[in-house]
Amino acid sequence: MTEQALVVLSGGQDSTTCLWWAIDRFGRENVETLTFDYGQRHRVELQCAAAVADSAGVVQTVLPVNTFAALGGNALTDDGVAVAGADRGNLPSTFVPGRNLIFLTFAAAYCWPRGIHHIVTGVAQTDYSGYPDCREETLAALAQTLQLGMEQDFTIHTPLMNLTKGQTVLLAKELGAIDAMGLTHTCYEGQRPPCGACPACILRAKGFAEAGIADPLLSV
Amino acid sequence: MTEQALVVLSGGQDSTTCLWWAIDRFGRENVETLTFDYGQRHRVELQCAAAVADSAGVVQTVLPVNTFAALGGNALTDDGVAVAGADRGNLPSTFVPGRNLIFLTFAAAYCWPRGIHHIVTGVAQTDYSGYPDCREETLAALAQTLQLGMEQDFTIHTPLMNLTKGQTVLLAKELGAIDAMGLTHTCYEGQRPPCGACPACILRAKGFAEAGIADPLLSV
Repeated sequence: MTEQALVVLSGGQDSTTCLWWAIDRFGRENVETLTFDYGQRHRVELQCAAAVADSAGVVQTVLPVNTFAALGGNALTDDGVAVAGADRGNLPSTFVPGRNLIFLTFAAAYCWPRGIHHIVTGVAQTDYSGYPDCREETLAALAQTLQLGMEQDFTIHTPLMNLTKGQTVLLAKELGAIDAMGLTHTCYEGQRPPCGACPACILRAKGFAEAGIADPLLSV
Repeated sequence: MTEQALVVLSGGQDSTTCLWWAIDRFGRENVETLTFDYGQRHRVELQCAAAVADSAGVVQTVLPVNTFAALGGNALTDDGVAVAGADRGNLPSTFVPGRNLIFLTFAAAYCWPRGIHHIVTGVAQTDYSGYPDCREETLAALAQTLQLGMEQDFTIHTPLMNLTKGQTVLLAKELGAIDAMGLTHTCYEGQRPPCGACPACILRAKGFAEAGIADPLLSV
C-alpha cells in the first residue's frame, strides 16, 4: 500500500519547505495539506497557505479552531496583546499554550479515518523563540500519546527540527521550493511586503543571508 | 500557596462525581470547571453542565470548539451517523478521535496563565466503550506531553479510572453527590427523562443497580 502523508501548512516558510519535502519523499499524489483557521489576526497567512498548496498542486483542507481566540491572551489572536510584550519567563507573547499540540492532535484526528500515518510539521528546535511545544522530546511524547489515544501508528516528521534557518533555506533550494517562498508569509506584523523589523522578519532575513540566496518575497 | 484545580465538566454522571471529588480534595473555593461546547447534538448536555456547576457553587467557563463538527463522521456531532453503527474495528461510532486529548490539552492551555496545576477528568478504563483516549497509559503520556509542551507541571487526576460504574455511584454517595445526579445527562439519544435503551443509559442503570441506590434522574 502506498504511504500517504499530511502536511500541516501554515503558509509560512517552514511549512512550505516541509510540503516540498513531503512531495519529494511520498510523491505528489500521496500528499495533502491541512491548514488551521484559528482566528489569526493576520488573515493573509490563510491566503498564502492556499496559494502555496495550489502552487504545489496538492489538496488543502482548512479546519476552523475557534478555541484559542476564546482563550485569549496571546499576540497571535488577540489585538490587545503586543508581539513584543513577553510576560511569562522566557516565553514570548506570541506563545499560544498548546497550539502545536492541538494542531497535531487535530491533524491526527483528520488522518485517523483516512488511514494516513505520516504527519509532517515545520517545527524546529532552533527557532529563536524557544517554544517548548516545538522541541523534539515534546513531539516524541505527543506521537506516543496519539498512538495510544487513537490506536493508530503515527509518525510525526519534523524535517527542519535541527536545522538552522540558513540550512532550511538551503534545503528549500535543494527541493526546488525557493520560488514558492515568494508565496509565503512570515511577518508577525502581518505586512506584505514584510516589515523587516519584527523578530520573524529578522530571523527569515538571517536565514536567506546565511544561505547566500535572495528571498523572492522581497522582490514581489 | 493553595492548590487550585480545574474539573473538565461535561454535565454527565462521571464528571459531576469528579467535581464533588475535587471540592472534597481541594476545597470549593479552589475549584473551577471547564465545559466544552463542541457542537454536541444534544444541547441538553450544556444545560446540565451549567446546572451542575451552579448547584456546586463553582465557576464554570464554557469554551467553544468548532473543529470536531468540521471534521465530521461521528455520532456525537453528526446527525448523519447513527450511535449504533460501529464502523472501525472495535471502536463505536461515538468515538471521536482525539476528543479527550483535545479537551485536556485545551484545559491545560486554560490552566497555564492561571497557574493551575491540577486537572480532573471523569474518564474511566472500565467504561464499556473502550475508548483508547480514556486509558491510564494514554493519560500518562498526555500529562508528559503537556508538561514538556507548556513547561508547567500538570497532574491529571482520574478518580474514576479503575472504578466500575457501581463503585462510581458509591463514590458519589460518599461525596454527597447523589442529589446532583438528578441534574446530569447521560442518554446518547439526548432524551430527558432518559430513553433507557441506549448503551449509555443501560450502563448508567447497571451502575445504580450495582450500588443499590435509586437514580434520582428517573424520578425527575
